[in-house]
Amino acid sequence: MSLKSPVDPVALTAALVRCNSVTPAEGGALQLLEGLLAEAGFDCTRVDRNGTPNLYARWGARGANRSFGFNGHTDVVPVGDLAAWTQDPFGAAIIDGVMYGRGTTDMKSGVAAFAAAAVDFVRETPPDGAVILAITGDEECDATDGTVALLDWMAQQGERMTHCLVGEPTCPNHMGEMMKIGRRGSMTCWFSATGVQGHSAYPHRAKNPLSALVQLLARLEAKPLDEGTDHFDASTLAITTIDCGNPATNVIPAKAQATVNIRYNDLHTGQSLADWLRSHADAVEAATGVQIATRFQLSGDAFLTPPGEFSAMLRRAVQAETGVEPVYSTSGGTSDARFVKDHCPVVEFGLVGKTMHQVDERVEVAQIHQLKAIYARVLQDYFS
Amino acid sequence: MSLKSPVDPVALTAALVRCNSVTPAEGGALQLLEGLLAEAGFDCTRVDRNGTPNLYARWGARGANRSFGFNGHTDVVPVGDLAAWTQDPFGAAIIDGVMYGRGTTDMKSGVAAFAAAAVDFVRETPPDGAVILAITGDEECDATDGTVALLDWMAQQGERMTHCLVGEPTCPNHMGEMMKIGRRGSMTCWFSATGVQGHSAYPHRAKNPLSALVQLLARLEAKPLDEGTDHFDASTLAITTIDCGNPATNVIPAKAQATVNIRYNDLHTGQSLADWLRSHADAVEAATGVQIATRFQLSGDAFLTPPGEFSAMLRRAVQAETGVEPVYSTSGGTSDARFVKDHCPVVEFGLVGKTMHQVDERVEVAQIHQLKAIYARVLQDYFS
Repeated sequence: MSLKSPVDPVALTAALVRCNSVTPAEGGALQLLEGLLAEAGFDCTRVDRNGTPNLYARWGARGANRSFGFNGHTDVVPVGDLAAWTQDPFGAAIIDGVMYGRGTTDMKSGVAAFAAAAVDFVRETPPDGAVILAITGDEECDATDGTVALLDWMAQQGERMTHCLVGEPTCPNHMGEMMKIGRRGSMTCWFSATGVQGHSAYPHRAKNPLSALVQLLARLEAKPLDEGTDHFDASTLAITTIDCGNPATNVIPAKAQATVNIRYNDLHTGQSLADWLRSHADAVEAATGVQIATRFQLSGDAFLTPPGEFSAMLRRAVQAETGVEPVYSTSGGTSDARFVKDHCPVVEFGLVGKTMHQVDERVEVAQIHQLKAIYARVLQDYFS
Repeated sequence: MSLKSPVDPVALTAALVRCNSVTPAEGGALQLLEGLLAEAGFDCTRVDRNGTPNLYARWGARGANRSFGFNGHTDVVPVGDLAAWTQDPFGAAIIDGVMYGRGTTDMKSGVAAFAAAAVDFVRETPPDGAVILAITGDEECDATDGTVALLDWMAQQGERMTHCLVGEPTCPNHMGEMMKIGRRGSMTCWFSATGVQGHSAYPHRAKNPLSALVQLLARLEAKPLDEGTDHFDASTLAITTIDCGNPATNVIPAKAQATVNIRYNDLHTGQSLADWLRSHADAVEAATGVQIATRFQLSGDAFLTPPGEFSAMLRRAVQAETGVEPVYSTSGGTSDARFVKDHCPVVEFGLVGKTMHQVDERVEVAQIHQLKAIYARVLQDYFS
C-alpha cells in the first residue's frame, strides 16, 4: 500500500482486515504496521511473549518528558457462522460507503486511524517529545501476554508513555457520543458445594448442596452491592449458571455448582469482593454443614482516570470533528485500559462498536476518516 | 417344588428368586404361584394389563363377609453391578443360614411367606370366608398397571377384600420392630424458568431465570411445611436438582430448571401442595418477570389406617412370634398400600429390609419362617 502522506486510514484498515489475525495469529497485521511505521522514522520493536505477537513503535526520544501513547490490538475474534456473512469476513469490501469484515470496528479501523494520524503528525509537524504506538496481537483472548507484555517490557527498557489513548470502539450508536474515562471491574466466582447424598424422603439425614447454594445465592442477591458513585453505575452481580445434573427425584445429590459474575465500581476491589463472597460462603457452611469451595478469577479491577485536562482535550477534539459532545462513561466490559492505567493516565475513544463480534461486522468509512482526524487533533493539542 | 403341606416358605422363596423377574418380566414367578395356589383350591385369574402380569387368587366365596387379603409383588429391581455380587443374584444360594439373591427381601420372601401360610391355612382349617392373594408383577417401576389393575378388576368383578396386609419389608434392622399403618405422600414438581438472555454486565436489561429459581426455592425452604402429626413425621421438601448448563460467565442465560420432591403427611394433599407451589411460583413471576412453568407428578397421597383392632391383631401376632412389640409407623417411601387404602383398611408388615435394592441382597432364612408364622397367626385370629 501507499506510504505517502497523508496516509489513507481507510486503505490501511482494509489492508489490516485482509490479514487473517484471529487470536493468536499475527496474520501479517503487525508486520504491515511495522513496515509503515519504520519507514516513517518510528523505532520499532517486536515484543513477542509466549507466542503472542506485540509491536512497540516509538518516534522521538526514549523517556521524553511528553510521550503520547496509543494502544490497540490487531487480533480479532473468530468469524462465527461463516455462511451467515453476506461478505468475505477478510475481504474488506466497501459497499455504499460501508466496509465489511472482521475487525472493521474492533479494532483494525482504530489502529489504522491512530497509525495514520501519528505518521502524518511526525512527518508534518515533528513534535518536541515522543509518539508511542503499543499494539498487541492478543486483546480478545487471555490477554496475558499482550498489552501486559508491552508494559512489562517498557518498564524494563525505561520506555514510558506520559498519557495514553486506547482506540477501542466506545460509541454505542452514533459517532462521537461517548468516551471512556474508566471501566468497571469484572470478577467471576465459581462455587462448588459438597454435601452428603441421601434419600429425598429423609432430608435430615443428608446435607443438600443445592439448599446451601440457594441460601448463598439468595444472600448475595438480597440487596444491591451499592448505589453507584460519581462516575460509575451501581455494581452488579449476576448468577450465570447453577448445575447439578441429578435425574433421580428420590435422591438428594452430594454435589452442585454455581457461578456468579460481578461488575463493580471503585467502591470495591477484586480482593474486597472475594472476601465478601467467602464470608457469605462461610456463613452458609456453618449453617448447613455443606462445604462450599470458592474459585475466583479477576478480569480487572475498576479504575477511573478522573476527569481533567487530558479527558477535556479528547472531548474537545471529538466535538470539533463530529459536532457531538461525548459523555464521560465508565460503562461496558473490560479493555486493555485496565492494564495501562497502572502505567499512566488513560482514556478511550473510538468509533461506533455496534457490530463488533457479530456476523457482517462493518463500519462506515466516513467514521474512519473522522477518527483519524480526532486522533490527529489530540496529537496537535497535546504537543502544542 | 413340593406342594405338600406344610409348604416350605424358604424353598418357595428360593424358587421365586430363581425366576428372573426384573420389572416388567414375569420370569415364571406368577406362573409358579398360580400352579401352587390352584392346586390348593384357589380360584386363580391372571389380570394382566398393558403387558404387566398380575395374579389374583381367591380361596372361598366371592364377596364373602370376611375376605382377608394379602398384597405383594414378584418383580424385582435390576441387579446393578453384577461384578460386585458375591453370589448369583438369581441363584438363591444359602450360606450360613442366609439366602442371597435379588428379591430375597423385596419381596419374594414376603410373597412366599403369605402364600405358604394361606395354603396351609385353607387346607388345615378352612375358614368361614375368603382368603385373597393379589400379587403384581410391577410394583418397582411405574406401578400403573399393577396393583391398580388388580383393584380395578376386583371392583368390576365384585371381588372384595375386607382387610388387607401388604407383605413389604417393614423392619429397619431387627425382625418384628416395625409395622406400617400408613405412608407419607410423595410428589415431585419440575420448575422450568424462562427469562430474557443478556450480558452479565447489564443484569437490568436481562431477566435472570436463575435468580427467579433461587428466590422461589428459598421461599419454599424458608420454613418447615409442618411439625408432624400424631402418626406422621413432619413433611419434608428436598431440592433434587437445579440445572442450566451455561458455560459463559459473561452471559445471563434465558432458561433454567429445578426439581423438588415433597414427602408429606395427612395435613396435605397433592392438590393442596400443587396449589402452594404454584402460588409461590406466581409470586416470583410477578416479582421478577421470569415465567415459571410447573409440572407435577403425584406418587400417592398420604394415608393412615387409624390404629384399631386390625393393627392390634397384627401387632399381637408379631409379638407372639418374635417377642418384639412392633411400633406403628408411617415412615419410609411409598408402597402399593397407597392404592389398597382406597379399597379397604390396609396395614403392612414384613421382614428386615436393610439390603433391599442393594448388591448382595439377602435374608436370614429364619426370618422367612417367622414371617410365615406371623401371617398364619393373623389368618387364624382374623377368622376365629
